[in-house]
Amino acid sequence: QIDSARLWGSIHETAQFGGTAKGGVRRLTLSSEDKQVRDWFRKACEDAGLEVHVDALGSQFGLRKGRDMSKLPVGIGSHLDTQPTGGKYDGILGTLGALEVIRTLNDAGIETEAPICVVNWTNEEGSRFAPAMMASAAYVGDFTTDDILSRKDIDGTTVGQALDSIGYRGDKPVGFQKLGCFVELHIEQGPILEAEGKTIGVVDSGQGVLWYDGKISGFESHAGSTPMPLRRDALATLSEIVLAMEAIAKKHGPNAVGTIGEAVIANPSRNVIPGEIAFTMDCRSADGAIMDALDRDLRAGIAEIAARRKVEVKIDLVWRKPPTHFDPKLIAAVENAAKTLGYSSRRITSGAGHDACNLNTVMPAAMVFVPCKDGISHNELEDATQPDCAAGTNVLMHTVLAIAGV
Amino acid sequence: QIDSARLWGSIHETAQFGGTAKGGVRRLTLSSEDKQVRDWFRKACEDAGLEVHVDALGSQFGLRKGRDMSKLPVGIGSHLDTQPTGGKYDGILGTLGALEVIRTLNDAGIETEAPICVVNWTNEEGSRFAPAMMASAAYVGDFTTDDILSRKDIDGTTVGQALDSIGYRGDKPVGFQKLGCFVELHIEQGPILEAEGKTIGVVDSGQGVLWYDGKISGFESHAGSTPMPLRRDALATLSEIVLAMEAIAKKHGPNAVGTIGEAVIANPSRNVIPGEIAFTMDCRSADGAIMDALDRDLRAGIAEIAARRKVEVKIDLVWRKPPTHFDPKLIAAVENAAKTLGYSSRRITSGAGHDACNLNTVMPAAMVFVPCKDGISHNELEDATQPDCAAGTNVLMHTVLAIAGV
Ligand SMILES: NC(=O)NCCC(=O)O
Ligand SMILES: NC(=O)NCCC(=O)O
Repeated sequence: QIDSARLWGSIHETAQFGGTAKGGVRRLTLSSEDKQVRDWFRKACEDAGLEVHVDALGSQFGLRKGRDMSKLPVGIGSHLDTQPTGGKYDGILGTLGALEVIRTLNDAGIETEAPICVVNWTNEEGSRFAPAMMASAAYVGDFTTDDILSRKDIDGTTVGQALDSIGYRGDKPVGFQKLGCFVELHIEQGPILEAEGKTIGVVDSGQGVLWYDGKISGFESHAGSTPMPLRRDALATLSEIVLAMEAIAKKHGPNAVGTIGEAVIANPSRNVIPGEIAFTMDCRSADGAIMDALDRDLRAGIAEIAARRKVEVKIDLVWRKPPTHFDPKLIAAVENAAKTLGYSSRRITSGAGHDACNLNTVMPAAMVFVPCKDGISHNELEDATQPDCAAGTNVLMHTVLAIAGV
Repeated sequence: QIDSARLWGSIHETAQFGGTAKGGVRRLTLSSEDKQVRDWFRKACEDAGLEVHVDALGSQFGLRKGRDMSKLPVGIGSHLDTQPTGGKYDGILGTLGALEVIRTLNDAGIETEAPICVVNWTNEEGSRFAPAMMASAAYVGDFTTDDILSRKDIDGTTVGQALDSIGYRGDKPVGFQKLGCFVELHIEQGPILEAEGKTIGVVDSGQGVLWYDGKISGFESHAGSTPMPLRRDALATLSEIVLAMEAIAKKHGPNAVGTIGEAVIANPSRNVIPGEIAFTMDCRSADGAIMDALDRDLRAGIAEIAARRKVEVKIDLVWRKPPTHFDPKLIAAVENAAKTLGYSSRRITSGAGHDACNLNTVMPAAMVFVPCKDGISHNELEDATQPDCAAGTNVLMHTVLAIAGV
């Protein structure tokens, strides 16, 4: 059994780095707050006897030796970055839970056959730089390191510049640390476990993701003197797109969602009809065929709206992540650990994307979910209980022991 | 006859102050570009023999003596500030046209009975600070000087601070310069004169304006893991409000318009459902009863949308300007001048608000419109012809001569 109080203490100690008045965390990737939590994490890993290295995209790897160093390490961990209005658990539980597993094994004097590697992946959230799960995507070869280093945030700062500014451009090439498999602990970020009174979610799959960048070009004109029928209003166009996206996601539901999270009017003024808007779209489904249908319906809907309103709408697919099907043996190992420990569990699909989804494309991967309050995440009010967090960490530890061998 | 080439030269010389690549002007009120054009205008007025004073809100008054100084001056002029994506003519034609009238009278050695006062009103556009036509509203007593001085732009800078930063907080109290009447020349900013091939618009009325500040409070949550039916999406709510406003304006049309020009998502992120949005609304009609109906329908529509989507929507009416009915004698004087000069004309309603609409509440006022290309205004592509600008300025001069007496 892990040390529940120590885990809880670490979560709340690090929540000060970017802590907000509403009890959440604002710790955008590669910000000064992110540097603070990284420094804390490196020291904690070193204190736990891990050998820590940083790769060219800033991901931190802490290695615990195994008896048989010819075996590839079992990877565990998650991320420490958050959304602009993020919570204390998303990513953090999985990273500090991994650290807690190491501390517990140390205290118990347990040596494993295979080594264990604790990982903090850079920019899982995708809020400052696209795509989400950026570093793990480069790790599995979906993008080159140079491509990722050149990605820009809204202010034009590149990933490379941001890494340098906090001193986290590491000296190891991406992929330097080989892993045999990866297991990630996370809060569910949805309402199912809580509603059904289950403690552990055995994640067997994950939704695919479509991310688009969009731009609407209408025509700026006077709010008072331009008759309604002559307008080419970019905001009215966006409004129809938002509602069309909502209707399309509902039509393909319950296994589909669609969101417009960002929309910026260029040169806004109260008495000017908006002429230009940049926006983003996020569509998801666990079913590849539904993803294709969402893309098709969305493009058709937008084309019809644009033509009718005589405005130009451009959309660019900037990221497509197919649905994830986790490794059956690892899924069974997680399910088994939950059973052995006496926790109630159910199979579950992840609505969110996770680094484990990327790693699953090149190695066996799996995930452990615990409930979160009212399914709320990406919100400062995100919450989870200490016993649930401890239960998930125990399941993570027992899964690792089963895979790594004692 | 005024000097068409000199007028055209002044318009294009001052268009460099904030000139944009697309041929428009970006000269927000009380910005450094506004200081440049104000300095130019003061020197030009002084060179034309006017005595220039600046009031506590930065409006510039250039007085030309009359034979009978016991008579109140005839006020002419407009504004030199622009929208963020503004044109070269909106406000500028009326201000530099007034200067051209003075220059022409000087050249011809014409002395008038009553004095003439050329005015550049501060912040007519209302884009940086609300309301629009700010300084003329204070002049007629709709707001106190202190109230206006404390108004803030989006960065929190007050009108008072902005005045000081460009050295245009004048030493004269607002209202120091009494005027007997006011005549304003302006581009139409709508499509009617051009469509009907008329040179002069004799403005007999102006639309009333309702300005609101709005705020939507929904709930931020995860774009991937939050099922569609559980969302409280602030952007979807705004979208319904935008389309409701459009439908309501059309329902009360053709004599009504409605626009949402500004909308800002708080803490936007691609994979977060928007939780909070601040926005503005602008509704207009030349009919007071329709204005009331717009307000009523809008409030009812928003209440229904907010309740159905379980979000909070607050709206504050920040400005209400009733419809304007200009002075019959001055309207006749403008009509007469156009006729005498041989220009085709028609009576017209102004879709936009103007300083003359404020002045009309305390003194006789009127306006002269000239056509603009495709009715386009509040856009960098705003355009007008040299002959039309000269025609309007001639009508302004002959109207002034008729009122002031030669
Ligand atoms: N787990 C999580 O919130 N990931 C962020 C990436 C996404 O799914 O949008
Ligand atoms: N004339 C003009 O564009 N005025 C700005 C104020 C408004 O009507 O919105």
